[in-house]
Amino acid sequence: MTDFASLQNHQIRLAARPVGMTTRENWSFTTEPVAAPADGGILVKTLYLSLDPAMRGWMNEGKSYIAPVEIGEVMRAGGIGKVVASEHPDFAEGDLVSGGLGVQEYKEFGAADIKRSGVFKIDTRLGTPTQWLNVLGMPGMTGYFGLMDVGQPKAGDVVVVSGASGAVGQTVGQLAKIKGCRVVGIAGGKAKCDFVVDELGFDACIDYKNEDVREGLKAQCPEGIDIYFDNVGGEILDHVLARLRRKARIIICGAISQYNSATGMQGPKNYLSLLVNRARMEGIVVFDYADRYPVAIAELAGYLEDGRMKSREDVVAGLDTFPESLVKLFTGGNFGKLVLQVASE
Amino acid sequence: MTDFASLQNHQIRLAARPVGMTTRENWSFTTEPVAAPADGGILVKTLYLSLDPAMRGWMNEGKSYIAPVEIGEVMRAGGIGKVVASEHPDFAEGDLVSGGLGVQEYKEFGAADIKRSGVFKIDTRLGTPTQWLNVLGMPGMTGYFGLMDVGQPKAGDVVVVSGASGAVGQTVGQLAKIKGCRVVGIAGGKAKCDFVVDELGFDACIDYKNEDVREGLKAQCPEGIDIYFDNVGGEILDHVLARLRRKARIIICGAISQYNSATGMQGPKNYLSLLVNRARMEGIVVFDYADRYPVAIAELAGYLEDGRMKSREDVVAGLDTFPESLVKLFTGGNFGKLVLQVASE
Repeated sequence: MTDFASLQNHQIRLAARPVGMTTRENWSFTTEPVAAPADGGILVKTLYLSLDPAMRGWMNEGKSYIAPVEIGEVMRAGGIGKVVASEHPDFAEGDLVSGGLGVQEYKEFGAADIKRSGVFKIDTRLGTPTQWLNVLGMPGMTGYFGLMDVGQPKAGDVVVVSGASGAVGQTVGQLAKIKGCRVVGIAGGKAKCDFVVDELGFDACIDYKNEDVREGLKAQCPEGIDIYFDNVGGEILDHVLARLRRKARIIICGAISQYNSATGMQGPKNYLSLLVNRARMEGIVVFDYADRYPVAIAELAGYLEDGRMKSREDVVAGLDTFPESLVKLFTGGNFGKLVLQVASE
Repeated sequence: MTDFASLQNHQIRLAARPVGMTTRENWSFTTEPVAAPADGGILVKTLYLSLDPAMRGWMNEGKSYIAPVEIGEVMRAGGIGKVVASEHPDFAEGDLVSGGLGVQEYKEFGAADIKRSGVFKIDTRLGTPTQWLNVLGMPGMTGYFGLMDVGQPKAGDVVVVSGASGAVGQTVGQLAKIKGCRVVGIAGGKAKCDFVVDELGFDACIDYKNEDVREGLKAQCPEGIDIYFDNVGGEILDHVLARLRRKARIIICGAISQYNSATGMQGPKNYLSLLVNRARMEGIVVFDYADRYPVAIAELAGYLEDGRMKSREDVVAGLDTFPESLVKLFTGGNFGKLVLQVASE
């Protein structure tokens, strides 16, 4: 039996809401004792945390699709952990689980959390723990349902994906290829673009850091764009709007270029292209599809197994690096799905 | 038999593309002789012309949903006219027709125009000639298919319509009421707002010239907005975006506040509300629904007959007033569907 009294839980809490780019000053670092789980609950040791652009939004005050993280609260984060003590019949010590661990080393889930599927066992035959935070996790589900339900791809469609080497972009682009589309990625830097084309099999990739995106889209999508999966917003969204095909679909998944703007959002000036082209721009929040995750996971795991889908995770070690690691998402410093490793298995 | 040699056709042609607000300097005035129609054709005398915000877009260079009007060309306009000579078996002298007359006193339609339904007889039992340019014409069709096909109203939905007293807004709001929705208009000035509520039966109307639209929407749509039919763009679109309900639909029909901007379009800064609320913004071009116009006309004419739908046209007389009359659309100077009367019947 684990000696809980000897364990310490290091935590990172939101100390102040950021203005512009988030910095170390937005966080406080606390240590709490670890307690044995209550009846019907489990204690989970954090192994990996998912770092996501959406976290920046959770740090802001005000209504969104999910409540903001309160000042003083442990920062919200999904992750993969190991059950170290269980008072619940469905979980055993050593089980690997996925759930809302928060940015901390240990998390106790009560019976109620378990009942509402706030934590669930992962099957490592389907994917590695970090793949369960990537293609089989929230980014994969976001990409899957955004592309399939909102985008409704048909074979031959021209699909453009921004943030192409990132977590959501990887899944979207490869899935669109599997569905018979022509896929053009947008990513920052030659290495990411080469990866997207050579490893993930996209038809082309535009390097927004070194190329003119407008000209790149013109060259790669001479007949226009049927589907745009938008992770970045800003000027790239406007360039895509200017090249829409009739009845095009834009999936609004995020606007990573705008989240840290201290001067407010930039709206898409070319939005009347929606009118000219009878096109549609629609937002997606992945939680709406929770009851269909198993179907998507099964399909995506099949592609992982048969080699048609690859995944790349960028694993950074150390809970204490969280503040700087998170910033990488907004500077393009990560290469692949960004994962924070908190402990070894 | 008409003595065509005695007739003169006064015309207004695009002389220069506008920068910012259109003025009289954008037009040239020409006079041509009138010729008898060729075999299979008809000659039509213009009675009424439809003045529409879309005209401002046609004056610009560049690709849109329809080719721009070329410099030197007679300005494009739909209208109602009377057949004054016919060499086609389906048309007789005295028939009233609707078609692309252009801003001029006479228009000859060839056999090919007639074949592709470029001109058709109107049934004045269903509506007056000016109603055939309003609720039974392009604005009515735009409102009908935009609301019904893109908006998909359900009883109890909260529907907001900008340009509420204008041609499209009238139809949209009254139709939404008939479909069981709560309808809030936005219009400029007390007289228009009173008309929209007292005559057209909207539940409320926000006077954007004298009220705070943000506060007005908060008061009138405390639970949020399900459908927004946007004719204006600009800040009002942003205020609506900030109050969307889950799964809301925004129909992008136009952006009258932006067409005369010399500094470029203003994009909707709050567009990420589409994400938060899983909402959709979609453009509509009425021509796509041409094969279903008869169905919509029959339904709307029924509402005109049973009194559930009213219409208001603002008729201005004199071809020569065209340049200044058109500007009224952009300054809010018209009250109801703006129609230019070119001749008496």
